[in-house]
Amino acid sequence: MPSQTIKSVSRTELSPVCFLNRTAYVMPEKIAVVHGERRYNYAQFQERVYRFASRLKELGLEKHGRVAFLSPNIPALLEAHFAIPMAGGVLVAINIRLNADEVSYILEHSGAKFLFVDSEFLPLVGQVNDKEVQITRIDDSGMESDPYESFLREGSPQQPDYYLEDEEEPIAINYTSGTTGRPKGVIFSHRGAYLNALGEIIEIGINQETVYLWTLPMFHCNGWCFTWAVTAVAGTHVCLRRPDAGEIWKLIKKEGVTHFNGAPTVQIMLVNHEDAFRPEKPVTVTIAGAPPSPTLLEKIEALNLKPIHVYGLTETYGPHTICEWHPSWDSLSEAEKATIRARQGQAYVTADLVRVVDENMADVPKDGKTIGEVVMRGNNVMIGYFKEVEATEKAFNGGWFHSGDLAVWHPDGYIELRDRLKDIIISGGENISTIEIEQTIVKHPAVLECAVIAIPDEKWGERPKAFVTLRKNARATEKEIIDFCRQKIARYKCPAAVEFDELPKTSTGKVQKYILREREWARKEKRIN
Amino acid sequence: MPSQTIKSVSRTELSPVCFLNRTAYVMPEKIAVVHGERRYNYAQFQERVYRFASRLKELGLEKHGRVAFLSPNIPALLEAHFAIPMAGGVLVAINIRLNADEVSYILEHSGAKFLFVDSEFLPLVGQVNDKEVQITRIDDSGMESDPYESFLREGSPQQPDYYLEDEEEPIAINYTSGTTGRPKGVIFSHRGAYLNALGEIIEIGINQETVYLWTLPMFHCNGWCFTWAVTAVAGTHVCLRRPDAGEIWKLIKKEGVTHFNGAPTVQIMLVNHEDAFRPEKPVTVTIAGAPPSPTLLEKIEALNLKPIHVYGLTETYGPHTICEWHPSWDSLSEAEKATIRARQGQAYVTADLVRVVDENMADVPKDGKTIGEVVMRGNNVMIGYFKEVEATEKAFNGGWFHSGDLAVWHPDGYIELRDRLKDIIISGGENISTIEIEQTIVKHPAVLECAVIAIPDEKWGERPKAFVTLRKNARATEKEIIDFCRQKIARYKCPAAVEFDELPKTSTGKVQKYILREREWARKEKRIN
Repeated sequence: MPSQTIKSVSRTELSPVCFLNRTAYVMPEKIAVVHGERRYNYAQFQERVYRFASRLKELGLEKHGRVAFLSPNIPALLEAHFAIPMAGGVLVAINIRLNADEVSYILEHSGAKFLFVDSEFLPLVGQVNDKEVQITRIDDSGMESDPYESFLREGSPQQPDYYLEDEEEPIAINYTSGTTGRPKGVIFSHRGAYLNALGEIIEIGINQETVYLWTLPMFHCNGWCFTWAVTAVAGTHVCLRRPDAGEIWKLIKKEGVTHFNGAPTVQIMLVNHEDAFRPEKPVTVTIAGAPPSPTLLEKIEALNLKPIHVYGLTETYGPHTICEWHPSWDSLSEAEKATIRARQGQAYVTADLVRVVDENMADVPKDGKTIGEVVMRGNNVMIGYFKEVEATEKAFNGGWFHSGDLAVWHPDGYIELRDRLKDIIISGGENISTIEIEQTIVKHPAVLECAVIAIPDEKWGERPKAFVTLRKNARATEKEIIDFCRQKIARYKCPAAVEFDELPKTSTGKVQKYILREREWARKEKRIN
Repeated sequence: MPSQTIKSVSRTELSPVCFLNRTAYVMPEKIAVVHGERRYNYAQFQERVYRFASRLKELGLEKHGRVAFLSPNIPALLEAHFAIPMAGGVLVAINIRLNADEVSYILEHSGAKFLFVDSEFLPLVGQVNDKEVQITRIDDSGMESDPYESFLREGSPQQPDYYLEDEEEPIAINYTSGTTGRPKGVIFSHRGAYLNALGEIIEIGINQETVYLWTLPMFHCNGWCFTWAVTAVAGTHVCLRRPDAGEIWKLIKKEGVTHFNGAPTVQIMLVNHEDAFRPEKPVTVTIAGAPPSPTLLEKIEALNLKPIHVYGLTETYGPHTICEWHPSWDSLSEAEKATIRARQGQAYVTADLVRVVDENMADVPKDGKTIGEVVMRGNNVMIGYFKEVEATEKAFNGGWFHSGDLAVWHPDGYIELRDRLKDIIISGGENISTIEIEQTIVKHPAVLECAVIAIPDEKWGERPKAFVTLRKNARATEKEIIDFCRQKIARYKCPAAVEFDELPKTSTGKVQKYILREREWARKEKRIN
């Protein structure tokens, strides 16, 4: 029998590690992992995890010892989500788009004694002192010669002793992409990961028939806990080294994908790809990272992709809210539906309801107009920032986690993001939501995507500027875009300038507005000098 | 904002009461409760619960004070599942099929200071001292004149303070039907009820579109926690005063029922009813209480009812195991499928795997033959028996809850019940499973249902005797039944006698074998005297 941690007959500590034990027991022959031509059923998946965990313990992994991973969405990283906590350790899955300096900082800050690195990303760890950190290369071949496979071979196929004493112990540390300053390590607990995984199962509707495609990086909030959730329901994980649109369409067809997740940029890439087709069965697409534009939502639906809009942060294990659909909305026009679906909604069944508050932590009116900060609490909120007591206290000020996201609160209780606290434009004393301008601009038929930031203005303090990427072969001028906006939103909100370019993005597809902003404000400083 | 109990920013105590707060907030207009022509949406449902809880507190309900209910599946009892714990109390939902003595015992043993009683069951509480217990009559009319409605009117429509300090506090006490001795009070915790409700949502597959028909009594393990689970997903509860087959078929059609639960006897009644029809959309029927016969399972499927077989006890919040279906079984013959579906399977995703053990708590071989006792532990096991330290210790002997159910363990890890510990027949030193004989006899085309017990035998110690109910207008003789068995099972397992009669049953549809046994063994004693 799988050993589990029992405090009493009536209580088992909540841990997502139990999901694999249970699924491998009940459904050993079900396909757990697909990676190109490789296939592991749940019995094989479990054996690999046992070997991984046993070997880590043999090599001296201590309780709560950190084990770092630097890899794309391959079987090894999925295995790590079970093996490392099973061995009593804490997973640190590092963003592969970081540079060597940043990786080195995270390794040092986390104090990881073990590092597993995919061959492609070896250059990022050249600076790492291999006397302090045991490095294992992953060739991602699944072959005998693969150093990662040798590591597994040396482990025992028997389940190691599993010694979680308290469900609030850490299971993972996820470093935020940190647009300013050094990244911070967000601590997830076993309890939080377990409950969030159940929340994903219920809200997104996954089950034994789910074929989940790994477009979302597993290093991003542990893949919103889908690493654990898909395993809990005996679904199939389809791995993917990089989210290439052609490859995604191929896998949707070949593997019968039923679900995938990601930022709107992934979906934009997909709906505009030449291989796009309308699958017979609907595919559930869970979108977060930024509000999907009504235009994008309409296109997604035309391709029989069923969009679900969720919102959260690394600090909330990924999604915390969902725009839960009301049956009465079915009768609205397509445009109205898309407008509603762009809202962030309210908390998951396993999370606590979110609030929108002013500077004094008082609720803002539920008028759909007043902007305030989104705050969260409950089992879906991180334990804290690793080794950052002050930053944790600041984030938890007033007994709630401060998201740094600005939103309005609709009369029905749903929230709708207006901006990042640091992105909002203050022009002549008025708040201008960059998201509102962006959602207007992407309605223009020539526009693929866009980002709006504040630029300095002598008279108004700040004015909006739009960075726009046009569709293939489409054309538009600055004036056309500005005129288009003037027809739809108040004049003071319309961009003062438009620039046509590719947008800088994070590995998870978020637009890096700070890069645009730095560029613009540097110019200003130059001018002033 | 709904007040919830927060120990820290990262932790909210798990309680199913939160499900109503969240659903009423997110989906206020969704129909929550249907009862004949009455309809309450979630906002109304919540207001009624607030009034109920506030009034209880005003009347002096203390923390953990017990509030008893004696009613069929009506809105008031559903409301009680949220209002009583919201007011800090503990719900004691009493079986309405008990007699006045038993009801009086439970009221006294539980120490309930409040009692709500449906008019129909007033005769059962004639002995209750109304100086010690505040009694409120429920006319189940929803009208102003209904004393229960007056009670609600006097309460405040505002949410009362909710002061759960620890999720392992009690939420309900459910008295077992106790086939021997006095009933025992099984304590459920907030945490257990919350996790079990999530387990039901995931395993049975309920969601916002679910229309759940209350065929299973809510007083039976709080309706297997579906009281809370259906509310969590914003499904619709369809109330039902009594599980009448004609009424059930009518509601399946009229309300678009998607799910109902119950013992096999409910299904037997249904499939044999003249109003039976094949609904267009499949209706999920979750069956527990006794293993459904392969014959019954085949009939259920023919009516587009999708059977799920689960197993548990009051001590495990209702279901603990499910016969999870393997895709590879789809290619089996209908008879083979039905045989597999009759297995009890393995633990829910939120429960711990069950074991089958011998007298020394060692695992029996997984050979599908050796009989042992089913034992459970984890978050799905009761806190203990109320005021029964010794009985609790005995039930938890060796760190596991002893179910008193005998099963074999199949090579794939699934369990299959063979008998209650007290029902097994020992004949000439051999164990004979009464369930095996019963499943054989119900394959006879004339048989509606049957129960097998041990009768005394001078030579063999015990021998099986079958009590058989024939189908309407069908005929069979004792000899025909015995011959039928001889073609299918070993001769020593065949019944020594067959009697044709109605079977005595509990309110939840379980056959009361002890009544048959007492009768038989009393005859023997007479003979000896």
